Amino acid sequence: MAPDQEIQLLCPVPVADDQKIMLAHGGGGRLMQRLLDQVVLKELHNDCLQERHDCALVPTPKSASTRLAFTTDSYVVRPLFFSGGDIGTLAVNGTVNDLAMGGAKPTWLSASFILEEGLPISTLRRICASMRRAAQAAEVTIVTGDTKVVERGKGDGIFITTSGVGVVNHAHPIGPRQVRPGDAILLSGDVGRHGIALMAVREGIRLETSLESDCAPLARTVLRLLDADVPVHCLRDLTRGGLASALVEIAEASGLELEVDENKIAVAEPVRAICEILGLDVLHVANEGRFIALVPSDHAEKALEALRGDPLGADARQIGRVAEPASRRVILRSALGTRRILDMLSGEQLPRIC
Amino acid sequence: MAPDQEIQLLCPVPVADDQKIMLAHGGGGRLMQRLLDQVVLKELHNDCLQERHDCALVPTPKSASTRLAFTTDSYVVRPLFFSGGDIGTLAVNGTVNDLAMGGAKPTWLSASFILEEGLPISTLRRICASMRRAAQAAEVTIVTGDTKVVERGKGDGIFITTSGVGVVNHAHPIGPRQVRPGDAILLSGDVGRHGIALMAVREGIRLETSLESDCAPLARTVLRLLDADVPVHCLRDLTRGGLASALVEIAEASGLELEVDENKIAVAEPVRAICEILGLDVLHVANEGRFIALVPSDHAEKALEALRGDPLGADARQIGRVAEPASRRVILRSALGTRRILDMLSGEQLPRIC
Repeated sequence: MAPDQEIQLLCPVPVADDQKIMLAHGGGGRLMQRLLDQVVLKELHNDCLQERHDCALVPTPKSASTRLAFTTDSYVVRPLFFSGGDIGTLAVNGTVNDLAMGGAKPTWLSASFILEEGLPISTLRRICASMRRAAQAAEVTIVTGDTKVVERGKGDGIFITTSGVGVVNHAHPIGPRQVRPGDAILLSGDVGRHGIALMAVREGIRLETSLESDCAPLARTVLRLLDADVPVHCLRDLTRGGLASALVEIAEASGLELEVDENKIAVAEPVRAICEILGLDVLHVANEGRFIALVPSDHAEKALEALRGDPLGADARQIGRVAEPASRRVILRSALGTRRILDMLSGEQLPRIC
Repeated sequence: MAPDQEIQLLCPVPVADDQKIMLAHGGGGRLMQRLLDQVVLKELHNDCLQERHDCALVPTPKSASTRLAFTTDSYVVRPLFFSGGDIGTLAVNGTVNDLAMGGAKPTWLSASFILEEGLPISTLRRICASMRRAAQAAEVTIVTGDTKVVERGKGDGIFITTSGVGVVNHAHPIGPRQVRPGDAILLSGDVGRHGIALMAVREGIRLETSLESDCAPLARTVLRLLDADVPVHCLRDLTRGGLASALVEIAEASGLELEVDENKIAVAEPVRAICEILGLDVLHVANEGRFIALVPSDHAEKALEALRGDPLGADARQIGRVAEPASRRVILRSALGTRRILDMLSGEQLPRIC
């Protein structure tokens, strides 16, 4: 045992923000207890976490027709902090949004940390505080968690894996296989903010206007659709691979042809400018607070109205429709009136955006 | 985009086992789809995963008195493969066991991978196959997952985070606060195998006898106690920090004194020998298939009988009892008849054992 660890043990002093993570913080002993008590649990405080049991017990939803939604995502975003959020915000909102895309009301979250030796305690504290705020905003409770520490050079500061459990209160299925010819394709807002906000930090690009990630919890916005009795066929948030990947995945899974109109897809001016400078196609750039909804065309107006009643859907628009042919393709009608097939990328333009 | 990635895209050849993970495998595009289809989903195949939706939908348990248990753990074990298991086995069994310690029947699991660029595809395939076998053995279904890739030198081959949801069918609470003076402390088997099996691989120690990790799913064993109507007060599996940490945590959370008898704690001969050579206290060494149960003393015999009816509890014994004083301490009566206070370590003797 390193001498400084022993000193830690003997002195009941707080885990100070100028200290760094040591391997021993992951060992299941006193130091780990102290890290959890004074940093992680202090920031994320709630009754369920305070139990410090191996697992959290939560009540079963009352209604027998209710189903549960279950999802998980690991977050490895670089940089850890960016305009409009950080890895903690993202880890909460990303998992909340995956539940929302199943038509679920997100309810319980778990959080598991893989820390690299040498991570400043202050960084961990700041990220945990972000997670608490994001969880409050999304109306979810982080009920259980885990912490591991790996040696310097075997991780990258911090990775967070969140899993989520949500409650599905409606009966109709939502997914690519429910998509039908004629369905309207609705987009909740402008695209490309998250990827470009990260890229700007990474590349040191200075902007005259502010550009923030769109990172946000989408459940409330989505549930407005269901509460308005819109028979939603499919929902998809536009993360890795952007709008293009989401559309292509739905075309392939449904077997149908999706037609979208480039003119209808909103892109903020600084996003468009940086995409032009860097030669990126904004349709492939990741978002963390945007989604598409495919709904029967005769419900499109009602759906747009429901979306626009929420700040995160204020700019919702219909961007296209599902066509008859069983082509499994996405057709993009460009601003110039030409038509081209939209495909997903092989890999990713901007690795580690989430 | 690297030329070899482009070739991947153009050739619909299988993801071969002699290939390695590239950053693009984590990008949400074609390469990622192919990796999932041909490796992860192929090995872990089930209907729910095949939906490829953002989250899994599972039915709510029927009974209104039922509660849900929810847990998560990240696995960063080194080496990835060891005698008696690998990181995949551990990721399934560890999370299954955390649910079991809540008195739950483990039901659904999620699996999230953080892969380091350069990881051989064959390694990922082998680990996924282990997870499938472990899930089958533990009677759980891996219903949802995620895959991220980080640059070479920013991870360590593979980290896996599993979360689990289980169903709690009994009404009485289980946890350190339920512990009462007079409770019998039962131990399900011998201790120290997992930590020492890993240590043997790391240190290149050759053994004349075989020594395997005790990594195993404990839910069936634990549920035998509950099915036998033993009013279990507390359950704890003996992972990081070993038997000592589990006892100390319970003493501190319950506020009581725990007395255990060193003579009653079984240790396999090769485990004892390696502990002596390396100067390790076996009571602090991690296990992955052992647990303690604290039960009212008048139910101890029935509980031992129930445990011994299962192969994973065949060697179950009473190792001590809970005493009256509100000392929050663990007293170890040694083989020589002396009494000493047992504490948890500050950090960990063997980092990254799970």
